Amino acid sequence: MKADNLLNSNFVRWMAADEGPETDIVVSSRIRLARNLDLIPFPHLLNQERGKKCLQELQSAWKKSDNKDLKEMDLFTFDQLTSLERQMLVEKHLISPNHAESDESFRGVLANADGSLVIMINEEDHLRIQCFLPGLQLEECYRRAQKIDDDLEKNLNFAFDDTRGYLTSCPTNVGTGMRASVMLHLPAIVFSGQTNHIFHNIGQLGMAVRGIYGEGTEMVGNFFQLSNQITMGQSEEDIINNLNTITTQVVEQERLIREKLAEEMKYQLEDRVGRAYGILSSARVLNSNEAMSLLSDVRLGVDMGILAKIKPYALNELVVAIRPAHLQKKTGKEMDAFHRDVKRAEVIQERLAITRG
Amino acid sequence: MKADNLLNSNFVRWMAADEGPETDIVVSSRIRLARNLDLIPFPHLLNQERGKKCLQELQSAWKKSDNKDLKEMDLFTFDQLTSLERQMLVEKHLISPNHAESDESFRGVLANADGSLVIMINEEDHLRIQCFLPGLQLEECYRRAQKIDDDLEKNLNFAFDDTRGYLTSCPTNVGTGMRASVMLHLPAIVFSGQTNHIFHNIGQLGMAVRGIYGEGTEMVGNFFQLSNQITMGQSEEDIINNLNTITTQVVEQERLIREKLAEEMKYQLEDRVGRAYGILSSARVLNSNEAMSLLSDVRLGVDMGILAKIKPYALNELVVAIRPAHLQKKTGKEMDAFHRDVKRAEVIQERLAITRG
Repeated sequence: MKADNLLNSNFVRWMAADEGPETDIVVSSRIRLARNLDLIPFPHLLNQERGKKCLQELQSAWKKSDNKDLKEMDLFTFDQLTSLERQMLVEKHLISPNHAESDESFRGVLANADGSLVIMINEEDHLRIQCFLPGLQLEECYRRAQKIDDDLEKNLNFAFDDTRGYLTSCPTNVGTGMRASVMLHLPAIVFSGQTNHIFHNIGQLGMAVRGIYGEGTEMVGNFFQLSNQITMGQSEEDIINNLNTITTQVVEQERLIREKLAEEMKYQLEDRVGRAYGILSSARVLNSNEAMSLLSDVRLGVDMGILAKIKPYALNELVVAIRPAHLQKKTGKEMDAFHRDVKRAEVIQERLAITRG
Repeated sequence: MKADNLLNSNFVRWMAADEGPETDIVVSSRIRLARNLDLIPFPHLLNQERGKKCLQELQSAWKKSDNKDLKEMDLFTFDQLTSLERQMLVEKHLISPNHAESDESFRGVLANADGSLVIMINEEDHLRIQCFLPGLQLEECYRRAQKIDDDLEKNLNFAFDDTRGYLTSCPTNVGTGMRASVMLHLPAIVFSGQTNHIFHNIGQLGMAVRGIYGEGTEMVGNFFQLSNQITMGQSEEDIINNLNTITTQVVEQERLIREKLAEEMKYQLEDRVGRAYGILSSARVLNSNEAMSLLSDVRLGVDMGILAKIKPYALNELVVAIRPAHLQKKTGKEMDAFHRDVKRAEVIQERLAITRG
């Protein structure tokens, strides 16, 4: 299948750091549209029969469509994927951890080869149409997700209420059914101790700040996910504009502190970046949190021109390649934490050496 | 002068790790003979006049001698050396910190160009004849120091008592006047937590264990100095044999634990060595204690064949080259602690890069 790439390579589209704007701070953008089929109960009430019906309706609409993006997609139902493979999709940020837990044949994904378009099937909603791109590109993400939404809707009846908009399993998604989010790398803000203050302000503007793997996950490696909390009473354009404005302000703040660090703490900054690079280059055992934290320092060094030879896309890839499922897929067997830590150090050194060229 | 080398280069003879036996654990050996001129008070009672007389008598005996080693020596009186230069001799372990404090013209050293023979003049005793060699070479050190002692005695009257032996300023040196010592690198013993146990046993055998800069100094970088405490009632040969035996036992113990580490904790060992090398190679700011501790890890890696390209003598040199006086001499100006930390990182990286070649 075309989209086998998602399981056999580390790279997916949002990692292409040379492609989008502001990629030194905004790693990636995502738009997610929640849609449900009329007359079929929401997924948490699905049994085999209704689940299959839902999947069949989607398949039929997909096959009928002449949308170029849809035609290039592959269907993976979760009975076809191992638990490890589903976990790899989570590690690539393409599906939710909850979705990966199921191995039922009526759940799965419809995805293209570079992972920029991924529809989760029978997750919390019947369909969650997602588009992922590198840098700050919410409009383009929305344009592509909306196109798919429109084309599928030609052959599907989505649950829609004239007053409330799209109906969703969880009331927080009702309305546009849209969640816009950006993944930010904010080492200087964290270093300056202003995280709580800035995130509090963002919260008051109706936005949520989360860790790198979404709701309820730890904030590691100075990565944060910013997303809209309100889906009703605002148009899609309003939501995107708001998130764009707030993201731009956070980006400016991060840049300001980076400049100040470069001016006032040149040696300490170079020391921190240098040590991180040194340890990543030569440690033999690296646990996940330490590796993420060191990769964050190295990334800061790359973005600030201190480490010139490493490419940012290689760091985006590494953040995923060092996660447990990817390490085990690469090794071809299950590994305990210690052996993953050893393999993690190996993978990082291979990658950094290749990139330094 | 021939012995200017002692102030202009980092290298002195005891650093030649390819030269002596057991240099993977025994960094260097030293023999020190305390001698005093008859009829002149001990140095702590010296005034200018008596101090000069003592120096003149030594100079005269030195000039008259046809001993090849003595002929190759240079005299540095401490009014000729800056405080920084005297400190450099301390950092090279060639003179005591106390001796370096004086800038009087009747105190000084008589030393050869490679620093293997250094006579302290008017330190705690009128003369302290010292020989330093790499590895476990106490007999050879003694042979060379004794030759100088014998040849000087042809033209000098040393204070000597038939019952008590050589008379010295401090009663603990009376008798042979000899202090034999070895500098050991014992990272595995420290790692295993057996330090206190082993050092306690050594103490009971009449030996003292001290840090790298002698009495009252901290134990940094897993370096230890082992020396005899008893100078009376034992012949020079007995003292050397005893220290040889105990040193050999400690060396065996260190080797045993190293082998165990290599077998049972291969990854952790390689990790520790690798990280130390990585940090030393790329940090921008390194304080003295951290640098010593990392150099100790790297040295262990070199000695155990984990890091193949670094030469042990380069590490011996670095341990001295990163000390404050050497850093400031190299930079050509006084520096505060922070700027020394920056320079230290620079010096280490230069040296490691050269050595990796």
